[in-house]
Amino acid sequence: MKTYLYPEREEWAALTQRPVQKLDQLRAGVQQTFDLVQQRGDAALIELAAKFDKATLQNVWVTDKEVAAAVPQVAQELKDAIELAYNNINRFHEAQREAVQQLETMPGVTCWRKSVAIQKVGLYIPGGSAPLFSTLLMLGIPAQIAGCREIILTTPPSADGSINATILYTAHRLGIKRILKAGGAQAIAALAFGTETVPAVDKIFGPGNQYVTAAKQMVTQLGVAIDMPAGPSEVLVIADDSADADFVAADLLSQAEHGPDSQVVFVTNSEKQLLNVQAAVAEQVAKLPRQTVAQQALDNSVGVVVGSLDEALAFSNLYAPEHLILSVAEPEVLAEGVTQAGSVFMGHFSPESVGDYASGTNHTLPTNGYARNYSGVSLDSFVKKITFQQLTREGLERIGPAVETMAEAEGLHAHKNAVTIRLAKI
Amino acid sequence: MKTYLYPEREEWAALTQRPVQKLDQLRAGVQQTFDLVQQRGDAALIELAAKFDKATLQNVWVTDKEVAAAVPQVAQELKDAIELAYNNINRFHEAQREAVQQLETMPGVTCWRKSVAIQKVGLYIPGGSAPLFSTLLMLGIPAQIAGCREIILTTPPSADGSINATILYTAHRLGIKRILKAGGAQAIAALAFGTETVPAVDKIFGPGNQYVTAAKQMVTQLGVAIDMPAGPSEVLVIADDSADADFVAADLLSQAEHGPDSQVVFVTNSEKQLLNVQAAVAEQVAKLPRQTVAQQALDNSVGVVVGSLDEALAFSNLYAPEHLILSVAEPEVLAEGVTQAGSVFMGHFSPESVGDYASGTNHTLPTNGYARNYSGVSLDSFVKKITFQQLTREGLERIGPAVETMAEAEGLHAHKNAVTIRLAKI
Repeated sequence: MKTYLYPEREEWAALTQRPVQKLDQLRAGVQQTFDLVQQRGDAALIELAAKFDKATLQNVWVTDKEVAAAVPQVAQELKDAIELAYNNINRFHEAQREAVQQLETMPGVTCWRKSVAIQKVGLYIPGGSAPLFSTLLMLGIPAQIAGCREIILTTPPSADGSINATILYTAHRLGIKRILKAGGAQAIAALAFGTETVPAVDKIFGPGNQYVTAAKQMVTQLGVAIDMPAGPSEVLVIADDSADADFVAADLLSQAEHGPDSQVVFVTNSEKQLLNVQAAVAEQVAKLPRQTVAQQALDNSVGVVVGSLDEALAFSNLYAPEHLILSVAEPEVLAEGVTQAGSVFMGHFSPESVGDYASGTNHTLPTNGYARNYSGVSLDSFVKKITFQQLTREGLERIGPAVETMAEAEGLHAHKNAVTIRLAKI
Repeated sequence: MKTYLYPEREEWAALTQRPVQKLDQLRAGVQQTFDLVQQRGDAALIELAAKFDKATLQNVWVTDKEVAAAVPQVAQELKDAIELAYNNINRFHEAQREAVQQLETMPGVTCWRKSVAIQKVGLYIPGGSAPLFSTLLMLGIPAQIAGCREIILTTPPSADGSINATILYTAHRLGIKRILKAGGAQAIAALAFGTETVPAVDKIFGPGNQYVTAAKQMVTQLGVAIDMPAGPSEVLVIADDSADADFVAADLLSQAEHGPDSQVVFVTNSEKQLLNVQAAVAEQVAKLPRQTVAQQALDNSVGVVVGSLDEALAFSNLYAPEHLILSVAEPEVLAEGVTQAGSVFMGHFSPESVGDYASGTNHTLPTNGYARNYSGVSLDSFVKKITFQQLTREGLERIGPAVETMAEAEGLHAHKNAVTIRLAKI
């Protein structure tokens, strides 16, 4: 951890800088994959699964039999844990439903907004060593609540052609029936363009490696929406002397273990706390199975001592972290001033991992500074809010002259005429 | 208008196709503009205003004096119309505020979501012959309600270096004080990268020509958010025999006058109505000041007769129009089934122009089929929804074991440890 004691405000911009993502060089390769999938559909997916996943597939779709075989493979304890998480996530996202509220903006002019599901969505879940069934919960639950008509899950197969049992169990629990054995840019291509068996979707969700990230970025130029731009995961912890250094160290490490490019930032108003946390990190990291990865992330991490908690908050708002942990005596006070963060963890008993899995909030959050201008995934991400308006004869009489005046001032006479012709006849 | 009687479902995809936008060829030029603005800041804006707007600027910012001079230039009738529109738009967008609702997802685990303004936003308003002060209302009102800290309005200057008086008056009415005299890709560059006097913003809103569209698309790859991808404006009108052909024709023409690339689609269950509407269009178009433009758009427009109103709705949902007018006897019934549209105008007294100016709904809407996967601009567009969670000691004890089990199953031991270490100490 690189440490900085009371840096000047002018230095903050440099301290909050992220490494630049280099996706441009991947584009040519991703485009080749796109072309292949567009030209040959499922056959291309089978060919690319052999090449990248070393898997021999007969069929790109998971069968009912595979799902049925997976269900008993998941330990009851894990099923119970998933059930608890499911219930909390479901409750939090159900509460995000918006009732249709009709509003008479003036007599005879009624306007309202209605949330309608995005009809076809694709959920990308990475495979490999860590099967992210938690991400499947985070995306699948709001998709179901929204009422998306088609939900296509795609995840890369293992070398034996199978899909991780916990992923299949979670899909089963969510009622997701269409599970595609595809990963990487080819999975994004299948979702964006469709194949003879994969329907082209309207929006693609989920994290992935840099090829997936580049592919998602590219399809946004082709009419497909994505959840949000992606970057390495991040945490910023603000701690005062009330914090337990062991807790803070554990939180920093839970971010660091994600990957060598994980962003870990620690800000405190106490030099003593910085030393304590550094000592605790050194002790805990040695015991982690993913020690090498975590150590690399830590080497690039930043520890900053500032003059006050207000300054710590200003630093955090400038950084705009994906996860913000307020390990302070009065988190409610500090939370009031948070203007840029994905999700906030308040007090000493709210570690990030609780939100990653089970508190109920969504863990698909803006990284790379995008907490400035994007929200995390929520029910909103799976709906369009369509506006409606209905005027009575009297409403049109009241509002009509203003519309005519404004249309005329903008030089749009046919706009004016659509009112004039009606007012003349009624 | 090209007409199609009872086309087969297989032909619908071709009928709902939009012309492909060709922005790629503009990128090199836009990149040059970006480079110039990044290198030379305001001096580049002055240089480019001379080149593209033929304007000699001393200063890129509108002065208080210019605003004060503009206010009396706007006719009282227009001020009153703007006031009426302001009130309706403000009412509709105020109602979109979301109260913070704390939810105990399980005992001791409290989660909530809070809307926080995007701190710095840029509003692009095109200049030229039609000064779109209505768009300024549509963007400025929700920006003010959200509480954005910096609102930068940018609009190209006239050849004499001035900004249209109605635009200045509207900005004044909205309390927007920072008005930049810049248009085109250079305006987007100034907002995205900042200059010595322009702060770099977090999100850019507003319509523009193809250079503006290309520039907005390009900055999304550089950390800046935009309102939505843009394309030519569109209307789809569904009419049955209850509709007045003159009203329908006026609605189709109010879209057609926007530009030769405007998309106009008419769908009916009545052959007779198609003939009536065609006749009414021919009669009305001849009287329009923008007749040539409207006629070009009409030449590319599509009129379709289908077997029933349900089929008409299915056609519309496939097309996913920006504006959908339901000129039918029972619009409430049809509206229930709308799954893809930007804004819906119900019945015979709700012309699109009412929503364009004053009903209260936002007129910045998804075009080009993006009504499949994007919402129009609303208060949501100007905020991030930050999630929070706070656990009590008891809450952590309840949820902790499930988090440990799930983290372990994902192979993330430090995630597990952030809980274990706390549970061990409490």
